Amino acid sequence: MATPLAVDEALAAILEAAPVLPSEEIPYQEALGRILQEEVRADHDSPPFDKALMDGYAVVSSDLGTTPRVLRVLEEIPAGSDPGRLETLTTGTTSRIMTGAPIPPGADAVLIVEETEPVSGDAGAIRAKSRVGRGDNVARRGADVRAGDRLLAPGEFIGPGEIGVLASCGRTRVRVGGRPRLAVLATGDELVQADRDPGPGGIRNSNGPLLTALARRAGTEALDLGIAPDEPGRLRQALERGLEADVLVTSGGVSMGARDLVGETLRALGVAIRFDRVAIKPGKPFTFGTRGSTLVFGCPGNPVSSYVIFQVFARPAIRRMMGFAEPLPPRVRARLEAEVRQRPGRTGYYQARARVTADGFAVTILPTSGSADFVSCARGNALAIVPAEVETLAAGEVVEVLLLDDHADR
Amino acid sequence: MATPLAVDEALAAILEAAPVLPSEEIPYQEALGRILQEEVRADHDSPPFDKALMDGYAVVSSDLGTTPRVLRVLEEIPAGSDPGRLETLTTGTTSRIMTGAPIPPGADAVLIVEETEPVSGDAGAIRAKSRVGRGDNVARRGADVRAGDRLLAPGEFIGPGEIGVLASCGRTRVRVGGRPRLAVLATGDELVQADRDPGPGGIRNSNGPLLTALARRAGTEALDLGIAPDEPGRLRQALERGLEADVLVTSGGVSMGARDLVGETLRALGVAIRFDRVAIKPGKPFTFGTRGSTLVFGCPGNPVSSYVIFQVFARPAIRRMMGFAEPLPPRVRARLEAEVRQRPGRTGYYQARARVTADGFAVTILPTSGSADFVSCARGNALAIVPAEVETLAAGEVVEVLLLDDHADR
Repeated sequence: MATPLAVDEALAAILEAAPVLPSEEIPYQEALGRILQEEVRADHDSPPFDKALMDGYAVVSSDLGTTPRVLRVLEEIPAGSDPGRLETLTTGTTSRIMTGAPIPPGADAVLIVEETEPVSGDAGAIRAKSRVGRGDNVARRGADVRAGDRLLAPGEFIGPGEIGVLASCGRTRVRVGGRPRLAVLATGDELVQADRDPGPGGIRNSNGPLLTALARRAGTEALDLGIAPDEPGRLRQALERGLEADVLVTSGGVSMGARDLVGETLRALGVAIRFDRVAIKPGKPFTFGTRGSTLVFGCPGNPVSSYVIFQVFARPAIRRMMGFAEPLPPRVRARLEAEVRQRPGRTGYYQARARVTADGFAVTILPTSGSADFVSCARGNALAIVPAEVETLAAGEVVEVLLLDDHADR
Repeated sequence: MATPLAVDEALAAILEAAPVLPSEEIPYQEALGRILQEEVRADHDSPPFDKALMDGYAVVSSDLGTTPRVLRVLEEIPAGSDPGRLETLTTGTTSRIMTGAPIPPGADAVLIVEETEPVSGDAGAIRAKSRVGRGDNVARRGADVRAGDRLLAPGEFIGPGEIGVLASCGRTRVRVGGRPRLAVLATGDELVQADRDPGPGGIRNSNGPLLTALARRAGTEALDLGIAPDEPGRLRQALERGLEADVLVTSGGVSMGARDLVGETLRALGVAIRFDRVAIKPGKPFTFGTRGSTLVFGCPGNPVSSYVIFQVFARPAIRRMMGFAEPLPPRVRARLEAEVRQRPGRTGYYQARARVTADGFAVTILPTSGSADFVSCARGNALAIVPAEVETLAAGEVVEVLLLDDHADR
């Protein structure tokens, strides 16, 4: 058996093997959560014309040297008016104007409606009650953005704001990084589907649904292939199907036993196993391999190990494939809220809850009865990293913590 | 015109008006991102039997007082075996056992396969090379969870770990908080759809797609109703449709002009306007109303205001409706990386980028040319809060910051 690989070496090997998927062009509304793979430039000035920022009256500001002053109303300019068809203001005239409407030629300011009043007996005029500075309540053409300005660059994450930017410049189709297809396969004769009675000796398959949910939340199109028994023919068939995906994640069948057929069958199917042991706790018997551009993550059969392996190794690979510039989760320093002990030898990645305090992050490692106690996966929002050589850390000492994707929701 | 409401008062009024939606029962795989509304208890002990944690040989530990010792192999116990049908171990006997398989009666430990060797000329026996402690490599029945233990409580967020827990105890249907249906309507004669040439005087509708994307990311089922013109009949028709949703978000048409028909039409449709001005910058002309259990958020027509109003007011209401115990975004203290100035009077909520540093959060307020410059929405991951009375804050001073939902992705 090979010496277990250090976590950082394993991660580097995985990221190196993870191919950035070919980009694709999709409707912009579907691009939420994807990575932009082209440049987006403004196709017009914004605002596209000198624009009223308030409802009121377009005026020649020099006209209001002494107020009150009566102005003749030329027309009403609603938002959406063609700026080329507006009447030109001359001294003593004004036009009623709405927020967002184009400023007419000759005008250089908007007097807000509250600073005007009707002229009794003359419906065609208003009285300006106060002065207004040149440019007041007007957004100049191009003040926000000039045609040709670069608005978004390749590699940017597409959130709601970017969707708005794409809409504003008419980019209704957009080139984005690919979205990995991911297959999840749980293996083991003891497993039954969640809707079945496990009976004596059986256990419900929770790993498959757990990994599928993790993969969906990481942004993949995840397919749960269900359960493969420890029977060579059926296992091979299921793994073959899984290898059609961009990423195959298996659970179970990767330790040393005679019945641990997963590694063996993967090799027979042409998967190059890059390593099969990592000095991580939990999750040591973790196998990583590749076939062509497909990545294979063979997780141990217990849920906590699967969870940790996914978060530490698989999610960064998925993000790399999608084109994220930073595939790794945010890593922060946090004070331990209670003592932690471990048996030295492997780097510990422990389920934890991180919280923000007045002086930075604090973290509590969640109590767990062992690597099969996946209720702790449910309570955590972080993984606390305890170096391999450490035996005890006191409360108040600082550890590094990975913030997981649903950090904000807990 | 009423005095603008303080931000906190407005938020309190909105949260008070936001109804927690009735819960619903759905397939557990679809529950990701929802809030649990029932208790989940274990339906069986976990492990359900004394279980091997390693591949090897089930042994009577007291049998290995002196080693090496030859043991006769009774049978092979694969994972998934019925614990009631195993042969009982007596002194001098062993059974080959796989990880996850039940420990046979009489056995109290597992000797790992690496500590055994074949006996030459006797295929029915093995030689144990070392001692093993009582209970070694065995997980006792119920060590992780006892039947009846409460695993999940009402109000918990359902992430991937919770999906695993639900699967493990056969909860294939689960009761969760409702998911709001949300309608987005952009209003204004100047607007054209993103795929059209805006022509002179026109502007592409970016608010609608922006708000729809924000609403989807907040967990709602969001429907983009497109654009309603400033024409009373068509506007009324579109608003009526929007009021069928649980939440209606409009943009535009809420300032003071004669053509600002949205507020007027909402009133005519039976919406009780709770307030129509908030002392927030940007976003002051923000209208909030209710009709029955439907909430109506009338955002100003510019994208930055819409973005801020959504994040500060609408998203918390949505989360309250979904059953989140904490509807508000995480609020942290952060050091300003550069000076900030504002005209005092309204509380500033500025687009910002927050980052974690060795000594807590740091925040940069993004440069913006005004409330229509929505490119800044795209770059931010936070809103920095500058109190209404403040005119200048120096670099290094501390402000409060709201971390927005895609914080981890940027």
